[in-house]
Amino acid sequence: MANPLDYIEEKHPQGFTVRYEATELLFEGQSEFQNVKVVQTKGFGKMLLNDDLVMVTEKDEFVYHDMIAHVPLFVHPNPKRVLIIGGGDGGTAREVIRHPQVETCVMVEVDQMVVDACKEFIPQTAEAMSDSRVDLRIEDGVKFMKESEMTFDVILVDSTDPIGPATPLFGEEFYEDVFTRLADDGIVVAQGESPFYEQTMQKKLISLVKPHAKHFAFYNFHNMTYPGGLWSFLFASKKYHPTKDFNARRVAESGMSFQYYNAEMHTASFALPEFQSSMQKAESYGKTCE
Amino acid sequence: MANPLDYIEEKHPQGFTVRYEATELLFEGQSEFQNVKVVQTKGFGKMLLNDDLVMVTEKDEFVYHDMIAHVPLFVHPNPKRVLIIGGGDGGTAREVIRHPQVETCVMVEVDQMVVDACKEFIPQTAEAMSDSRVDLRIEDGVKFMKESEMTFDVILVDSTDPIGPATPLFGEEFYEDVFTRLADDGIVVAQGESPFYEQTMQKKLISLVKPHAKHFAFYNFHNMTYPGGLWSFLFASKKYHPTKDFNARRVAESGMSFQYYNAEMHTASFALPEFQSSMQKAESYGKTCE
Repeated sequence: MANPLDYIEEKHPQGFTVRYEATELLFEGQSEFQNVKVVQTKGFGKMLLNDDLVMVTEKDEFVYHDMIAHVPLFVHPNPKRVLIIGGGDGGTAREVIRHPQVETCVMVEVDQMVVDACKEFIPQTAEAMSDSRVDLRIEDGVKFMKESEMTFDVILVDSTDPIGPATPLFGEEFYEDVFTRLADDGIVVAQGESPFYEQTMQKKLISLVKPHAKHFAFYNFHNMTYPGGLWSFLFASKKYHPTKDFNARRVAESGMSFQYYNAEMHTASFALPEFQSSMQKAESYGKTCE
Repeated sequence: MANPLDYIEEKHPQGFTVRYEATELLFEGQSEFQNVKVVQTKGFGKMLLNDDLVMVTEKDEFVYHDMIAHVPLFVHPNPKRVLIIGGGDGGTAREVIRHPQVETCVMVEVDQMVVDACKEFIPQTAEAMSDSRVDLRIEDGVKFMKESEMTFDVILVDSTDPIGPATPLFGEEFYEDVFTRLADDGIVVAQGESPFYEQTMQKKLISLVKPHAKHFAFYNFHNMTYPGGLWSFLFASKKYHPTKDFNARRVAESGMSFQYYNAEMHTASFALPEFQSSMQKAESYGKTCE
């Protein structure tokens, strides 16, 4: 092995550190934006870390990618034009293009190094980026949103945490541009952080979509390798309600199979623990989904 | 500080270790059954560990205790007699006795040391054990189930993992006795392990309740300090369906407030990720809840 490794650690400011047993550092580089690593772990397959935070592991990436893609794509009746901001590992694009209505999936990733590292070491997610419907652009997502003249049916903000290169993706100006580029019946889904640890950021995300959306709501999923295990996406739409405008029959009729997502989980994921549900109600005064 | 400590570690056979920053070892003892520790952590308040596995933390114990108690107690129309097997920290009893219909809550904990350590250091959960309706018995749960002549409306198997002293609580004979001591319209809820990591044990739990129950199903919750974040309980009843016989109005009318549980979460928690749902369907051939 070129670069043997015993473990890789993820430190959390909330008072704990997770140490993953590993065998090899497959890649490490410092891009213009961040430190990028791919590690062969013992328990989770290959693992991508940006600035030493776990982004993707082969073992549990199916949860995140099922939930960011299939929830909006099974609500929108005809999602032809999909935009992914971030998502350089390719997993979100992989799930998006399983939907036959999707004609084009524009993917705007700021960091070429993430794309290259995943293409070389994590084909499980990265292979989708070679599909002819995926229009990969290495470009700043904020700049793209401001300058683009395209209109999208679904926009997925598949960002890292609001530190480092992804910080502007948690800003007011960015969301104004997102809703400008969204079709009148469009849906936005954004990586929504941890309900347990990031209540302040969840409140901020609500404040960013509230002026533009008719319906918005957090939905939750369980990632093994995200701190606390419980994680959120924020759904926001100018037209569609995430559960009332969802027809479970479409999932069955699609013939698609999943490891995590299913029609019951779609609806159930919008049920929130009381502490998060009451925060959402308080922050959205009457404009929430329920 | 009597016993300063920098951290406490939990090692997982699945290839990772969680290191919790700590300040003090408040208690350590070796009982007849297990090693018992109470640690003052930086991020999670006081933490109880049995054989170096995290059992309870002050910060997130509300999730587990809400979900083990309120799901069955809001399904059963008149839960007068409740039995807890295990649960020596007292958190389950605390939530059980919030229900005014409960006349007696028998609690059978094998390890006096756990009870004493929690009473001294974690009153947040342990205080309930002083309530007059709680009948605490320091006794082996398997022996109690075999010898008892009492009948219960709700039986909660609040056990540790199937290693060490709790191993017989995952056995056929124990479940035969549980259902013998259960009223004809009784409900059993058992700690159901991790859907991600313990699929074999989840299959075994189904096989244990299937011969005795009319309805049974796993339901999930998200614990910050359990490995993988996602965890299960198994609901089983001779009469009641966990969602069809659940009336959300009862929760509102109870006037009770929760941090995690609510009527939406009650129903949503029975929606399972596809990999777990298909396992449940396969193992229960037509006898499952759906």
